[in-house]
Amino acid sequence: MTVQNHQYWMAKALQLAKKGLYTTHPNPRVGCVLVKGGELIGQGFHLKTGEGHAEVQALANVLENFPKDHAAQLKGATAYVTLEPCSHQGKTPPCAEALIKAGVAQVVFGMQDPNPEVSGRGITKLKAAGIEVVGPVMEAECEALNPGFIKRMREGLPYVRVKLAMSLDGRTAMESGESQWITGAEARHDVQRLRAQSDAIVTGIGSVITDNPSMTVRIDSQDQEVDSKQVRQPLRVIMDSALSILPEAKILYPSSQACVFSIEEDIEQEHLKVLHKKGVDVRFSPRGEDGRLDLLDAMEQLADSGVNEVLLETGAELAGGFLQAGLVDEIVVYMAPKLLGSTARPLFQLPLDLMDEAVDLEFSSVRKVGQDLRLVYKPTYLEEDYEEGE
Amino acid sequence: MTVQNHQYWMAKALQLAKKGLYTTHPNPRVGCVLVKGGELIGQGFHLKTGEGHAEVQALANVLENFPKDHAAQLKGATAYVTLEPCSHQGKTPPCAEALIKAGVAQVVFGMQDPNPEVSGRGITKLKAAGIEVVGPVMEAECEALNPGFIKRMREGLPYVRVKLAMSLDGRTAMESGESQWITGAEARHDVQRLRAQSDAIVTGIGSVITDNPSMTVRIDSQDQEVDSKQVRQPLRVIMDSALSILPEAKILYPSSQACVFSIEEDIEQEHLKVLHKKGVDVRFSPRGEDGRLDLLDAMEQLADSGVNEVLLETGAELAGGFLQAGLVDEIVVYMAPKLLGSTARPLFQLPLDLMDEAVDLEFSSVRKVGQDLRLVYKPTYLEEDYEEGE
Repeated sequence: MTVQNHQYWMAKALQLAKKGLYTTHPNPRVGCVLVKGGELIGQGFHLKTGEGHAEVQALANVLENFPKDHAAQLKGATAYVTLEPCSHQGKTPPCAEALIKAGVAQVVFGMQDPNPEVSGRGITKLKAAGIEVVGPVMEAECEALNPGFIKRMREGLPYVRVKLAMSLDGRTAMESGESQWITGAEARHDVQRLRAQSDAIVTGIGSVITDNPSMTVRIDSQDQEVDSKQVRQPLRVIMDSALSILPEAKILYPSSQACVFSIEEDIEQEHLKVLHKKGVDVRFSPRGEDGRLDLLDAMEQLADSGVNEVLLETGAELAGGFLQAGLVDEIVVYMAPKLLGSTARPLFQLPLDLMDEAVDLEFSSVRKVGQDLRLVYKPTYLEEDYEEGE
Repeated sequence: MTVQNHQYWMAKALQLAKKGLYTTHPNPRVGCVLVKGGELIGQGFHLKTGEGHAEVQALANVLENFPKDHAAQLKGATAYVTLEPCSHQGKTPPCAEALIKAGVAQVVFGMQDPNPEVSGRGITKLKAAGIEVVGPVMEAECEALNPGFIKRMREGLPYVRVKLAMSLDGRTAMESGESQWITGAEARHDVQRLRAQSDAIVTGIGSVITDNPSMTVRIDSQDQEVDSKQVRQPLRVIMDSALSILPEAKILYPSSQACVFSIEEDIEQEHLKVLHKKGVDVRFSPRGEDGRLDLLDAMEQLADSGVNEVLLETGAELAGGFLQAGLVDEIVVYMAPKLLGSTARPLFQLPLDLMDEAVDLEFSSVRKVGQDLRLVYKPTYLEEDYEEGE
């Protein structure tokens, strides 16, 4: 193969990066390929925190492929990396230095480091060493790999994905709360994948009281897309202003991965002690302007503890609250081929009076999952708010 | 070209039939090709009532193509027709006879005549004349051409398509009724095409009072899909139990194509006289079990007057009524990328209490129309009811 095309090799690096979809957090998903004379000489991706970055893995792969002349192979090679090589010493040595030492002649990057404090430094370092730097190449695709990592770095907030299951008429449950099996098995399995790629699952005390869910990831070992052995359990987060969660609630166990957000002055100290004894992490957020728990503060706290992607799985009330707080980045709707009727429960508790107040969304994608449709939208109010703020 | 494949030629006949999409009603859309030695020698389709059937048009086309030896060309040819050739004298002579006279050796048909009184007679006649008859070929596609004509012939009812415009959260308007521009221009244009292919547009007095719509077909002369000059205005039907429609309502004019359904004992005779003077056709239906106008009776009356396809464009109340009466064959939803909130108006007024009562739908299709999604579903309760009735 002698293809000398930046996009071709970057696409290959993107494919490699995706192998870390379920495992890299809190780190970003990154892929790297090393190319010499139009031939692939090494490839790598970041698998999980503490293990080598994509560039280091790719350099090691060259050694495996060319045990006798790997140094000669690397001299003058081109490195394709989906993210700007890091310039700082973290748990592993800086990748920019490793590439310089290896003697590559060119580095093609997909996107700059989203961390404003270090963005561009890796590029500067490479250029200072006489390496030709090209990029960004396929920037949108590279950004789509890490919506959570990027948002956390740029805005100090996690990327919040709201998952909803509804009927064609926009209902999530009957008035009574009866809601089992709105969507089919395939859609429910797809939700497990969404959970698996998230750093945290957020729900409300209402859902916990009603359904007593465990909210763990259950990936079938038959799943071709996900290596079930690699899947990590995300943090389970419960929004519970008055700390009324029962110590026996399934969602709290294992308690090392559970966390409850409350308003300090609303809780009973005795109950807090019981939860602390069980090992549950209880955090506090102030009361927001609407009298409820300040969701922005809670999300900032999660981002501070390294949470990139949040999956919000909850009822209309809390989902509406996130939406009104401008915290929703993506809405994933599983739409069942059913009509539940006009008395059934709504999708978002969102009391709006005027058409002008309607939340505008941007359509992202639609595909069939079993008998259901999977629809993805992005609220556009966020961008507007962002622009106004600039 | 020497393709001797039934499906190939039937697909060609189907394409021809579709040219009558906006014009044939109350007749069915039918296409015909005549083939000799693997070559097309003539083609035709039914354009509108009173003009030649597809077979006759195709035979005439052979004469045009082969003015000197058309009789020789036809001898031993094969005719492909999307619908079984008719055997009875209507406004035009029977097509089965025309094909026999022309001397074709083989007739391939797409589907049998759906009219139980004559179904199969054309085939019998052709066979009796020594013609080889093959079929049905591509039956599902041929049936999809004429859902309304088929349902009217088989069940004495029109095919009812409900058109709805909603937000992602299943809302059609704000609580106040404010509803302008939920969907985009492309979706609204697509609705005009749905109207144009319908024999009747049905709405409720509530929508007439709120919006005073004209409900006419407005096809842009730039539209590539529809010949705007051929478009006919469908019948406009208003469900108005108490006959409270104002004589000035736009939807009543031209009154030759307007029709109001009322309950006879609920109306004021004076008002009826005023409407009669304006030339409006007022029909009566009995009161149904739920105390409201019997929609089944009204639909039977429309079918009796030759209405094949009904487009129901109305509010949640009447749409819910049609659904509960089992009269809806297809739901076409234009879904806007918006959230209107939980106090906004629902899609169907359909008070259900238990999950078991949910109306199951069968997904048909989804495509993007401008910024909106166009979703088509078919209620499956109809089939169940039908099976129970057998």
